[in-house]
Amino acid sequence: MFFPTMEKYTVEVKVELKKGVTDPEGENTKKALALLGFNAIESVRSLRVYELMVSAETKEKAIAIAEESCRKLLANPVIHNYKIMVKEL
Amino acid sequence: MFFPTMEKYTVEVKVELKKGVTDPEGENTKKALALLGFNAIESVRSLRVYELMVSAETKEKAIAIAEESCRKLLANPVIHNYKIMVKEL
Repeated sequence: MFFPTMEKYTVEVKVELKKGVTDPEGENTKKALALLGFNAIESVRSLRVYELMVSAETKEKAIAIAEESCRKLLANPVIHNYKIMVKEL
Repeated sequence: MFFPTMEKYTVEVKVELKKGVTDPEGENTKKALALLGFNAIESVRSLRVYELMVSAETKEKAIAIAEESCRKLLANPVIHNYKIMVKEL
């Protein structure tokens, strides 16, 4: 019998708002920083990152699993873009 | 009179939970993914990223401003670690 060797990959999924979508968290962070005197900070964007530990046979399969998880749960295609990167262990 | 030239830097601030701090968002994301059939995803960590647009004379000053903003607002030293990276425009 053949058992494929499973490797563990750390996949970083970066979910960001699409251009033109308002980012209340970023805007309020900017306001709070301005109140603290950080006038050099002109804008703030907030992003969400998920670090997934994926066990898969190949790097490509790990990326495919992460991509599907974005489509099904992590990102809302109406407002979000996402980027997937594999971190080497 | 001398006016220093101000450059704009995009500084990425990554705020993550320290080791040992429970990450309910990550754990619940993992559970939701498992319910959707993603059994290959063994763990999920959630991180917050802020992209700051900073106007400063030098890259080093931009990093210093971002670092101070972390200490004063963006990160809680009890539970968070942060990393600062400058993205070249």
